[in-house]
Amino acid sequence: MAESDADRAHMRAALALARRGLGNTWPNPAVGCVLVKDDRVVGRGWTQPGGRPHAETQALDRAGEAARGATAYVTLEPCSHWGRTPPCCDALIRAGVRRVVVAAGDPDPRVDGRGLARLREAGVTVETGLFRAEAEALNAGFARRITSGLPLVTLKLATTLDGRIATATGESQWITGPEARRAAHAIRGRHDAILVGSGTVLADDPELTCRLPGMARVPLARVVADSRLRTPLGAKLVATARQVPTWIATRTGQKPAALAPYQEAGVEILTVRRERRGLDLAALLGALAQRGITRVMAEGGAGLAAALLRARLVQHLAWFHAPGIMGGDGLPAVQPLPLDLLSAMPRFRRVSSRPVGADWLSEFVNEEAEGPCSPES
Amino acid sequence: MAESDADRAHMRAALALARRGLGNTWPNPAVGCVLVKDDRVVGRGWTQPGGRPHAETQALDRAGEAARGATAYVTLEPCSHWGRTPPCCDALIRAGVRRVVVAAGDPDPRVDGRGLARLREAGVTVETGLFRAEAEALNAGFARRITSGLPLVTLKLATTLDGRIATATGESQWITGPEARRAAHAIRGRHDAILVGSGTVLADDPELTCRLPGMARVPLARVVADSRLRTPLGAKLVATARQVPTWIATRTGQKPAALAPYQEAGVEILTVRRERRGLDLAALLGALAQRGITRVMAEGGAGLAAALLRARLVQHLAWFHAPGIMGGDGLPAVQPLPLDLLSAMPRFRRVSSRPVGADWLSEFVNEEAEGPCSPES
Repeated sequence: MAESDADRAHMRAALALARRGLGNTWPNPAVGCVLVKDDRVVGRGWTQPGGRPHAETQALDRAGEAARGATAYVTLEPCSHWGRTPPCCDALIRAGVRRVVVAAGDPDPRVDGRGLARLREAGVTVETGLFRAEAEALNAGFARRITSGLPLVTLKLATTLDGRIATATGESQWITGPEARRAAHAIRGRHDAILVGSGTVLADDPELTCRLPGMARVPLARVVADSRLRTPLGAKLVATARQVPTWIATRTGQKPAALAPYQEAGVEILTVRRERRGLDLAALLGALAQRGITRVMAEGGAGLAAALLRARLVQHLAWFHAPGIMGGDGLPAVQPLPLDLLSAMPRFRRVSSRPVGADWLSEFVNEEAEGPCSPES
Repeated sequence: MAESDADRAHMRAALALARRGLGNTWPNPAVGCVLVKDDRVVGRGWTQPGGRPHAETQALDRAGEAARGATAYVTLEPCSHWGRTPPCCDALIRAGVRRVVVAAGDPDPRVDGRGLARLREAGVTVETGLFRAEAEALNAGFARRITSGLPLVTLKLATTLDGRIATATGESQWITGPEARRAAHAIRGRHDAILVGSGTVLADDPELTCRLPGMARVPLARVVADSRLRTPLGAKLVATARQVPTWIATRTGQKPAALAPYQEAGVEILTVRRERRGLDLAALLGALAQRGITRVMAEGGAGLAAALLRARLVQHLAWFHAPGIMGGDGLPAVQPLPLDLLSAMPRFRRVSSRPVGADWLSEFVNEEAEGPCSPES
């Protein structure tokens, strides 16, 4: 195909719409759709919170009769299977859409080309690949869940220039400024779940909610990696478990009596096998993916960060550097990996860097990660 | 005065010329001068390596007879005293310059307004203050030497994202890439001397020269803070002491027999009193300022960095972050300050940030530092 400037502009708009859904659409991908007839946008849609309705349905509803003869720009191949909603392919065909431009194929084996084939069979012109990389990056979490059975993991750290997160005496509030903390909340908002270690719960008793004004969303699931069940029953996470999904992942073989008080408070328990150094984090993440989680933000502490890096489970890195120096007795952001050879050091590729108040946010991707992924998504 | 766009453009050019001298003009300030007649530049000059000839002399030589009736844009008040060269004021007057625009006053008590007064007495129109802040930043090292008896200190660090400079096993080459190392050499080039601790000499046996192709300059003085005289006589620094000025600062009271082999190799010994944790660095820097040094770049190691920060002797910070994570057993860039309260943490203000190959360079100024200073200078 030879796409036009108009095609590019409309697909860019569809990608922007899709992005609105990030963190809100699991277990489904975040998709955007723009319907255009006679150079006029007649409908726009994006995957709604919880993953339904789909983007195409939303756009078709908006367009009504105007959809007949229109071109649909969709960031992901329209679904061809009956889930909880009828297939979007059929809806597009039924509405009389004449041409469908698709950015990326759906890795879901229930779709995987069938959507495109079905459209073509119905006489719809189908073109694919426009902004494919951007669309794939946008749904890297969904694709990873489908293809690897794991969610995408973003590790977020906020440190001094010399990589410290607290003084030797444990003082950590605040190293970064209010703007950086707001930006961190915005990053939370693009994820399905937050993962922390039990040490962070003990040290900070965090709420781990996305507290940006006006940010309506499905609740962010809160996950504690807690091999030894150290999370206090009085922790804020436990106290609010009936309002916000709260999962504690602990080692297999815990006594039911130890789990019961958490469960009674509304906490869901995931059991995961223990390895020499702690929980098997790949197994933990696998359990999250099974529950539909596509994007996890790991927020600490230093032990969890090291364990995720050691297991090569980090795809994205968001690092806030405050313009201060704490010195060598400050608490390190990442516990020993440990690393003997410099060549074995986890290295990332910077994809963006910007000032956030007095601090600086740099975002990176893991070059080893499969498939394209970008913190933009 | 109401300066014109032309005035601003010419002074900007003079500042750019002045900048060429940074690191090359000590004990003198780096000054730039542009001579303009009838909207045409008739002469340009900047302080030459070693501090002479002065910028004004250079520009007047270039202009010759065209200087008569011209305007001189000078970044620093022209000198009024006889040093090793006749006063620039007299040269400007003698050449028939009609108007002199000066960015900043000379803090040297031998000048300090006398230059301007002398010009005015001779009937020359004098205007001051155009780009004063920029000019003062450019000569912050010279001003600090004159007013505080200390040089400006730039602390340069190159670390992982988590602030490490070597693996637990001591492997440190290379954390940053070749572009960052070249950029670090360029920063060296804007300084008069490099300061390292003896641990760095023992660990790396560095040359500490400015090895950028085509960068003609006065040799960068190399200074080792070495309280216990641990520098090996076979170190590269000692072996090349006859080619490049090499100073070892050690504690007072060292036996002459211990000093003699260094001195025979061409090393100059500075004796400085010892404090509880090591040499009195303010005294060490004072000794450098007495020798005319205006700008010092501190390059390591972690002990020296901590000592300088502890003594609040760091004005500029140049931090290269490589996009890797080493973990908590890596060698920290800065030894314990130590710091109990977060509020006591040394904080800086970011003035620039840019990619350098795969790495990232951020430059900062110490807000507590007296007077304006900018890493640009």
